[in-house]
Amino acid sequence: MTPADVLISEVGPRDGLQSVKTTMPTPDKLRWITALHAAGLREIEVGSFVPARLLPQMADAAEVVHHAITLPGLRVMALVPNRRGAEAALAAGVHKITLPVSASEAHSLANVRKTRGQMVDEVREVLALRRERAPGVSVEVGLSTAFGCTLQGSVPEDEVIRLAATLVEAGVDEVGLSDTTGMANPAQVRRLFLRLRAEIGDRAGAAHLHNTRGLGLANCLAAWDVGVRGFDSSQGGLGGCPYAPGASGNVVTEDLVHMFEAMGVRTGVDGAALLAARAVLQQGLPGEPLYGMSVLVADGRH
Amino acid sequence: MTPADVLISEVGPRDGLQSVKTTMPTPDKLRWITALHAAGLREIEVGSFVPARLLPQMADAAEVVHHAITLPGLRVMALVPNRRGAEAALAAGVHKITLPVSASEAHSLANVRKTRGQMVDEVREVLALRRERAPGVSVEVGLSTAFGCTLQGSVPEDEVIRLAATLVEAGVDEVGLSDTTGMANPAQVRRLFLRLRAEIGDRAGAAHLHNTRGLGLANCLAAWDVGVRGFDSSQGGLGGCPYAPGASGNVVTEDLVHMFEAMGVRTGVDGAALLAARAVLQQGLPGEPLYGMSVLVADGRH
Repeated sequence: MTPADVLISEVGPRDGLQSVKTTMPTPDKLRWITALHAAGLREIEVGSFVPARLLPQMADAAEVVHHAITLPGLRVMALVPNRRGAEAALAAGVHKITLPVSASEAHSLANVRKTRGQMVDEVREVLALRRERAPGVSVEVGLSTAFGCTLQGSVPEDEVIRLAATLVEAGVDEVGLSDTTGMANPAQVRRLFLRLRAEIGDRAGAAHLHNTRGLGLANCLAAWDVGVRGFDSSQGGLGGCPYAPGASGNVVTEDLVHMFEAMGVRTGVDGAALLAARAVLQQGLPGEPLYGMSVLVADGRH
Repeated sequence: MTPADVLISEVGPRDGLQSVKTTMPTPDKLRWITALHAAGLREIEVGSFVPARLLPQMADAAEVVHHAITLPGLRVMALVPNRRGAEAALAAGVHKITLPVSASEAHSLANVRKTRGQMVDEVREVLALRRERAPGVSVEVGLSTAFGCTLQGSVPEDEVIRLAATLVEAGVDEVGLSDTTGMANPAQVRRLFLRLRAEIGDRAGAAHLHNTRGLGLANCLAAWDVGVRGFDSSQGGLGGCPYAPGASGNVVTEDLVHMFEAMGVRTGVDGAALLAARAVLQQGLPGEPLYGMSVLVADGRH
C-alpha cells in the first residue's frame, strides 16, 4: 500500500450515482469500484441502503458490497438513513457505516422529515445495533448543511459543534462536516474545523466540500491547513446536486488528487490509474457529463 | 470609495480581449470599462501598446486610455513590451505601466524572441523614459512563467527571486508573479511569495494566477495567507489562454470577489454591479463563453 498523508474517500458510487437519472448496471459499478481501488483509493462509499422504490439506483447495494469487500485493503463504506438500513448494510458486510444528520433543523425536516433530535435517536439505535452485531464496524456521521442552508440561511456554529459533541457522547467514531449547499468559504472552514477538533479531538472526521461556487479546492486547502486529513470527493465531480452545466457539485477526485500531489502531499492515488477508472465510469454512464479541470490538461489538450 | 482589504486588478480589457478572436468595438470597450469602474474596481489594465498589425484587438488602446482616465479614482494601467510602447502609453496618459518579463529563458525566447537579460534591458529603457517624461507613473513587472513553464518545465525559484531583485535594483516599483501556464500549486505559491517579500519587501507585487487546472482560487487563497494583497483577475475568466471548453484561463473576477467577500475580506467591489458589467461585456462579445461558478448561483439557478 502506498503511503499517504491524506485519506481521500471516494463517494462517487453512492453520492454520485444516486444523483444521476440513469441507473448504472451492476457489472459496471463493480468494474468502476475495482478500477478506483486499483488507482489506490482506500475508502469508497459504495452505496446506500434505502428502500429501492426511493432510490432504484441503489437497489443493488448488497451485491456491490459483496464485491467491494473482496478488494484488499479497501475500507467499504455505505450510507444508511436508519436502523433498518444499518441492518442490511451490516448483513452485507460493510466495514463502515455513515449516517447523514442535518445541522440545520429546516434541512432535516425537509430532507428526512425528522428533527435533528430524532435523527440523533436514529444514530443511537444504529450504535446499539453495531454493539450487538458488529463491534468492529465503524460509524461515522456527516453533519450536512454545516456551513449554511439554502432553506434557513446561516447555521449557527455553536449548534454544529454541540451536535457533534452529542453524537460523540452517543458513541459515534467520527463526525465530519459537509458543505451540502456549497456555501462554505475558506475562513469558515478553518474556523469550524478548528472548533470541531477542539471539541471532539480525534473524533473530528472528514471534510465533505462542494464546488458549487467554485470554492471546492480552496476550501479543501483551508481544511488541510487546520489539520484535516480526510476528504470526501467524487470522481468526475459526479453528484452533489450540480445545478448548472459546467458546474460540479462534489469536489472532483481527480482535481483534489492533483492539488495535493502537486503540493507534495501524498494521496496514495495514482493519477494515470485514476484516469483509467474515469474511463470505466464514463463507459457505465455514457453521455453523463464528467468534470475535472486537471484532467483536461492531463489529456494533453493544453 | 469603499474601503478594501485587497486590490483586485481587472485585466480583462487587455489580457482577456487580447485572447479572443473577435475585436470588441471601441464603444463597447468604453462601456465595459465604465461598468467595471462603477462596480468598484480601482485598477484596470485597459489595453496594450503593441503594433496594431500584431494585435488588432488593441489598436484603439490610446482612445481607451483617454476615456478610462476620466473615471474618478481609477488607476489606469497598460501593458507595454518595450520603450516604443511605453512612449505611446505615457503619451496617452496612463497611470501605470506593466511589462512582462519571463522567468523562464525558453518562454522568453519563444514569446518575445529576447533573452531574459535583454528584457531587463528593455525595462531599464522604459524606466529611463519614465524618469524623463512621467516620474509620477508607476512601473510594474509581472514575472511570467514564475511557477513553471510548458517549454522548459520547472523554473528554478532562485532564478525567479534573483530576477525580481535585479528589476527592483533597476528601479521597478512592483514585481508580481504570474502563473502563465497554470502550473502553480498552493504550497509553491506560499513559498515563492514569501521569498519574494523577503527579498524585495514592499516592492512585492500582485499575484496573477490562472485556473487552468482548477487551482485558481486555492492559489489566490494561498497567496492571501502569506500577505499578498494585490490580485489580477479577469471578468468572466476571459483570456489567459483557455485551452478547452469549460476551462477558464485567468481567475474569474466574479469568483475571486465572491471568495474574499464570503471570507469577510473587503474587495470594494459590489457584486450586483459586477454582474451588470458582465452583461455589458457579453453584449460587446456576443457568443463568447464567459466563466464563473459563483455567477451561476447568483443567477438564482441554484
